[in-house]
Amino acid sequence: MINRQWLLAHRPARHLTHADFEYREIPYALPALAPGQILLRNRLFRFSPAMRGWMKATAQYVPPMAIGQPVLGNAAAEVIASRSPDYPVGSIVSTLTSWQDFQVMDPSVVAVPPRIKPADMSLEDFEGVFGSNSLTAYFGLLDVGRPRSGETVLVSGAAGSTGSVAAQLAKIMGCRVIGIAGGAEKCAWLRETCGLDATIDYKSEDVARRLAEFCPDGVDVFFDNVGGSLLDSAIEVMARFGRIVLCGQIASYDDGDALAPGPRNMMRVIYWRLKLQGFLVFDYIDQLPSALADLRRWHDEKRITHHSERVRGFARLPETFLRIFDGSSHGTLLLEAD
Amino acid sequence: MINRQWLLAHRPARHLTHADFEYREIPYALPALAPGQILLRNRLFRFSPAMRGWMKATAQYVPPMAIGQPVLGNAAAEVIASRSPDYPVGSIVSTLTSWQDFQVMDPSVVAVPPRIKPADMSLEDFEGVFGSNSLTAYFGLLDVGRPRSGETVLVSGAAGSTGSVAAQLAKIMGCRVIGIAGGAEKCAWLRETCGLDATIDYKSEDVARRLAEFCPDGVDVFFDNVGGSLLDSAIEVMARFGRIVLCGQIASYDDGDALAPGPRNMMRVIYWRLKLQGFLVFDYIDQLPSALADLRRWHDEKRITHHSERVRGFARLPETFLRIFDGSSHGTLLLEAD
Repeated sequence: MINRQWLLAHRPARHLTHADFEYREIPYALPALAPGQILLRNRLFRFSPAMRGWMKATAQYVPPMAIGQPVLGNAAAEVIASRSPDYPVGSIVSTLTSWQDFQVMDPSVVAVPPRIKPADMSLEDFEGVFGSNSLTAYFGLLDVGRPRSGETVLVSGAAGSTGSVAAQLAKIMGCRVIGIAGGAEKCAWLRETCGLDATIDYKSEDVARRLAEFCPDGVDVFFDNVGGSLLDSAIEVMARFGRIVLCGQIASYDDGDALAPGPRNMMRVIYWRLKLQGFLVFDYIDQLPSALADLRRWHDEKRITHHSERVRGFARLPETFLRIFDGSSHGTLLLEAD
Repeated sequence: MINRQWLLAHRPARHLTHADFEYREIPYALPALAPGQILLRNRLFRFSPAMRGWMKATAQYVPPMAIGQPVLGNAAAEVIASRSPDYPVGSIVSTLTSWQDFQVMDPSVVAVPPRIKPADMSLEDFEGVFGSNSLTAYFGLLDVGRPRSGETVLVSGAAGSTGSVAAQLAKIMGCRVIGIAGGAEKCAWLRETCGLDATIDYKSEDVARRLAEFCPDGVDVFFDNVGGSLLDSAIEVMARFGRIVLCGQIASYDDGDALAPGPRNMMRVIYWRLKLQGFLVFDYIDQLPSALADLRRWHDEKRITHHSERVRGFARLPETFLRIFDGSSHGTLLLEAD
């Protein structure tokens, strides 16, 4: 057998390029598993901006990706051998894995145990609308942002995998929801399919001016996937006691180890009694079952829709990942191993 | 009679100077009070960095100070005429007033009603250890920061009127407390008199290096009066789930309308699940009695000490206020009208 791998060739300098990745095929014999271990075959890779952060040398919540090793990433994978009673052969799991065909793992020692796909759920929904990006939206919006009915919620990266779910959850909570996204098509989808009250196309519109126009009474909850100057603009329109959910900083992920300028108007944060709070979905592991039950119910009721784009071919892993940063992806970007 | 006044001569451009103030004496006849109104004679003025913010043209939680009008500031004042049964003649109140001898006020319409001095409290303690700077420390630390016994608390502007109380409250809560202040004398006072565990003299020490040294397990609560680059340095040493209490930004108050650079490492805020939260003491009016009871009890038990500096002479209002920004003041700066 062959194990195909995409390795991180070196620490990416600034903007990620295809040359930062190296392809390798190695002969592979099924390993002897230790008690508790499972052997996974990665089937459907999912891409997230967070992966770019894991590539940086700076200290993080996970050790930086190792040079010359397979790129860390999420996927739905099949258990093809198992010495763990919790993960029988044939189970499909969603997990942090890496860009290779085969992965050995001990589910009892990893930070986030692999999650088993229910039989009645499609692979695409498992990594898409019920994937960890959606769970991130769920806990970030509901537990950190805590929107109340009638409040105004702003979401940046609103057409993305996480943002689009956060925006629809805010609608379910009875809020007025404004989404910021790139391009007329994504904005139209957010308004017409996801039911957002208004959208701002950051590629063609003056964001600060539109924010002032759409939010005369201020923004109560800002779910921010972007950071940078957009966070600055949002601080200017927050309502008193507004909550800013710091979910991501896609504006600066691809800047190497340089840091983007931070939000400048900290006096307004004080005067308006704002709260800026970071969070990670990892902290909510014990609440995943009830969150997934909520998401499934709302999805069944057609109150949450989700856009996924699926490409095929292990060879295309790097080029597909790069699309996360050029704004061309919409919703969850998935790659099926061939 | 004469009413002496110090007016705001113009919108201060950048660094505040004596020329931003204009002295005036106007003939004064005791006014006819409307029902509910009281007439105050300002006795003991208190200075706070926040006043510099109120002078700016930018939008705030209070309207910007008016040009050509007496400077807004806090003081202990005597009620010399009254048509309010709640404020009999002879009462001493702590209130937001202005830099003049006489002030007419309707306590029922102001945002924060004047607070009456208990008979057994000195005027200096009333504006000092039991003044609104201390109350700011109380609610900011205990309600926003919520330190738990055994945690590490960092306070910037630690020798100041608010900071020194916040630091001592953290000690009372059972925390390890590190204070940042300017100069060996203030640092020695914080360690020896206030019982802080360690201090950093930002004038002579490398703050980032000392922070790393003193906080190997990170900072759980940072009570920040300073902002700017100090906030950046603190974010780097915060512990997971750390809380940053945004109390003031003295680093940038005196920069005119320009905004200091904001904290750059927002990714660490996410990865470490930090919370940055602004607050104003105004939001806690209904909780003042219990807060003051706590502060009095701890003061009686000698668990809170306070440093006040008192100067004399109405003529010296501007020059004394300027000292807030040159780092030469220690604790609460008070001026007694002659």
